[in-house]
Formats: sequence, structure tokens, C-alpha cells
Amino acid sequence: MGDNRPIGIFDSGIGGLTVLEEIHRLMPDERICYLGDTARVPYGSKSKETVLRYTLNNVRFLKEAGVKIVVVACNTASAYALPDLEGHDDPPVIGVIEGGVEAASKSLGGKIGVIGTEATIKSNVYQQNLERLRPGAQVKARACPMFVPLVEEGWTGNQIAQAVAEEYLAQFKGTIDTLVLGCTHYPLLKKVIGQVVGEEVRLVDSAQETALLVKKRLEKLNLLCDPTGQRPDIRFFVTDSPKRSMEVARRMLGNIEINEAEFVDIV
Amino acid sequence: MGDNRPIGIFDSGIGGLTVLEEIHRLMPDERICYLGDTARVPYGSKSKETVLRYTLNNVRFLKEAGVKIVVVACNTASAYALPDLEGHDDPPVIGVIEGGVEAASKSLGGKIGVIGTEATIKSNVYQQNLERLRPGAQVKARACPMFVPLVEEGWTGNQIAQAVAEEYLAQFKGTIDTLVLGCTHYPLLKKVIGQVVGEEVRLVDSAQETALLVKKRLEKLNLLCDPTGQRPDIRFFVTDSPKRSMEVARRMLGNIEINEAEFVDIV
Repeated sequence: MGDNRPIGIFDSGIGGLTVLEEIHRLMPDERICYLGDTARVPYGSKSKETVLRYTLNNVRFLKEAGVKIVVVACNTASAYALPDLEGHDDPPVIGVIEGGVEAASKSLGGKIGVIGTEATIKSNVYQQNLERLRPGAQVKARACPMFVPLVEEGWTGNQIAQAVAEEYLAQFKGTIDTLVLGCTHYPLLKKVIGQVVGEEVRLVDSAQETALLVKKRLEKLNLLCDPTGQRPDIRFFVTDSPKRSMEVARRMLGNIEINEAEFVDIV
Repeated sequence: MGDNRPIGIFDSGIGGLTVLEEIHRLMPDERICYLGDTARVPYGSKSKETVLRYTLNNVRFLKEAGVKIVVVACNTASAYALPDLEGHDDPPVIGVIEGGVEAASKSLGGKIGVIGTEATIKSNVYQQNLERLRPGAQVKARACPMFVPLVEEGWTGNQIAQAVAEEYLAQFKGTIDTLVLGCTHYPLLKKVIGQVVGEEVRLVDSAQETALLVKKRLEKLNLLCDPTGQRPDIRFFVTDSPKRSMEVARRMLGNIEINEAEFVDIV
């Protein structure tokens, strides 16, 4: 007998839908319950205390919604709040950093770049974990605060995206073999990031890595659902602006159909 | 006998310090109490209901702090919440839109552009008030969501600022004589905005206009303070990240000295 409760996912906004997409691709029968905290977005420029408070709030909502696991699909929340949540096992909580770190630690030459929000980079969590998993690695990190607004404006391939990427990433050219995209919005800028750092640099997309880890964890805990072969129930909750969130979600998600964004008052 | 209670000012973040600066320049003896809602910034991409809720929360804080007038130094909050607050007279509440509209309505040719956040432009409040005050005016509005992140990144004069301004404002070239900077962050981009729309276009900075209106209102209500000639008490409260807020404040404010940003837990 499988466990047919939904997988819970939350992000500060809609960026975490890149994680939802990968989880759905990998486990197409699983029900999903996604929460975007659009009333308080973004987290990346806020303090540890505030991000922790918002995160606990979101976890509580998902728990009450009856999920079997919580995926923190936000790098900032994972960086700041996960150490406080990792002991948690009812439901278990998993972040987006672990997967990215594991994948990046396999870097051929051990020259690894990390990009993320101001908060994520300031937390040093990627840098510390990479140095632990891959002793001797040379890790270079850079906050890229303009990348999220670029994605939200839909400017992912124009000359402005190009110029912003140049400004942040020129320092990585020729000096790294692997670059961790440490924010759920960044995969949408993959093309322009790749052009600037060089096509030979491996880009680690934590969404894909995290989906793999979630599957492993569910298997280990014997929490996978029964295969149904039917289109599963995917619910999309937001704390503000359901209509606008739905528009952005449609732009972001190619193949997944979500019926509507439901407003939820937890703030 | 003057009224020596402070003037209260709030903004979603630190952008409203441009209003504080103008008020202080015009009324150097007045005490000021500024609140930046940095835990929930920005407002410009959020819904009317959420912005209204946050605004009432901020007004309550300033009221409890004993201010004699509340200046809503945020265009988004003014656009969405002011109609609900205008009857308010204890303390009286004044927004940043009225001043900008009044100044812009004196446009020579009646061809007026308005720029602001997504929410401000969507609210139509500038457009409606301009058409009321200056019948027959041709008003063209455009949301510029990337301008706030640009200012917060400190990129106010580089080639990226230039390219973003081109993208948003090229449509105004040669078609307007007056442009309302409908967001408290935008005065920091004045130079680059002026270059794109043309030096002959008058830029209306609502911070200056609002300071004038606040002075008029205080005079009318007999609420101006006693002249002291001493450096007045200016207090700066934030709902998150006092240290970071203070750094940005120092970059923004040339001549005003604020001792520190004080954290306040109202969220």
C-alpha cells in the first residue's frame, strides 16, 4: 500500500515551481500541494530571523494540509531555516541546497562557482557544505540580486539580461568548471548564464537534483504513492495575488496543468 | 505654542527617505519618526487587499508612536489605501500622489507621462486625478518594475540602468512635456531618466511636492513645531534588517544624520 498524501512544496513566491516541475516529471503519479508566499516575497534580501519566522509559518500550513513531506523549494529559506528543521520528521523536511551541493561536489577540477540571493550567499551554506564534501575545492560565490526581478519581468534573453549576467558573472569566466544555480529562479536564465561563463562550465540546477533526492527519501521512508496512471491532483496556494501568480505560473510551466491559484490567508 | 510631536512617515522600505529628506530640508526643526516596512517590502507587486492591510498596520504603529500627521511616503500604498484613509483626521493622513498630480497638472502642453510600480499604474489613480484636475490632458502611463531593484543594487548610472530606462521610456520620447516619477525610488534615477525622455521634459518628483503639501497642511491645522534651531530628533524604525537598512540609508541621504535604524516587531 502506497502513501497517497500529497508532497508539500513551498517557496517565497513562484520560483519554486521549477522544483514542482521536476518532481512531477520524476514522479508523475504523486499529488502535490504547492504554497507560494507571494504576500511576503522576496526572502532573499531579508534577515535570518524574518526568513525563519516565515518558513515556520509555511511549514505549519503544509502540515495542516496533510502533506507527507515538505520540500523547501527556496534557497534562502533552506540556507537560513533548514538547520532548525532538519531534525523534523513529522513530516520530514528537505531543502534545495543538499542536492545542489552533492551534484557540484562531483566537479572535475574542484573549481566551483555559486550564485544566489544576497541572503543565500551571505549565509555561507553552499560554501561550507562544498568544502566539507569536497575538501580542497576552490569555491567562489557571488550574490546576483537582479536576476530574480529579471525573471519576473520576463526578460530572460534580451540584451539587458545579457548585460546583467556579464556584470555579475564575468569574474567566473575561465576560472570554474561548475556553477551552482543557487536560486529557484535562475534555471530560467540558464541560456544567458551559460553564454557568459562559457559553454564548458557545468550548470547545476538544484531543482533537478532536489527532485532526485525527494524521490530517494520517499522510497527510503516507504512513502511513495500507489501508481495510478491518472492525472494527479496538483494544488497551488498563494498568500497574495492569485490571478497574477497564475499568469506567471503559466509562463513558467510548460507541460503541467494547474487549474487555478487558491488564495490562502496565513500571513 | 507649537506642536512638538513628530511628523510620521512610512514607506514599504527605505525609498521614502527621499520624502523624509525633503520634509527635513523644508522644516528643519521638526521631529520625524520614519517607519520602513522592510520585512514585507516591496508593495508594488502586491494586491490591493494586502497593501491595504499592511498600510493600516503601519499607520497604527505611527499613531501609537504619537505622531501629529502621517505621511504615506509610498506611491503604491497611497494609490491603494489612501481613499480609505482620507477621512482620517486623528492623526491626519497625507499621501504622495496629491502633490505629484498637482504639479504635473500645470504641464504646459497637457502631455503628461506617469511611471510607477505595477500596482500604482494598475490602480489608475494618477491617470484619473490628472484627468480630473486637467481636463483634456493626454496621460500615458507605464509600469517600470525593474527601477526599484536597480536603485537597491546601487546601479543608478551604469549602462544597465541606461538600457532599462530605454526599454521602458523610449515610448515617451517627443510625446510628453512632463513626466511624474510616481515611486519614491525614482528620483535616484533622475539623471538617466532625463537623458532618455529628453532634457526638455519636466520631471515631477513627488518627494518635493509632498513636502510642500505637508508644510501647508501643518500650517493650516496649526501643527507646526516651535522653532528650536537645534538638530531635531529623527528616528528611523524598520521591521527587518536594521543594519542593512542603515547602510542603504546612508548611501541615499546626503546631509541628514540618523543615528541608527531601530528594529520594531509589528509584522
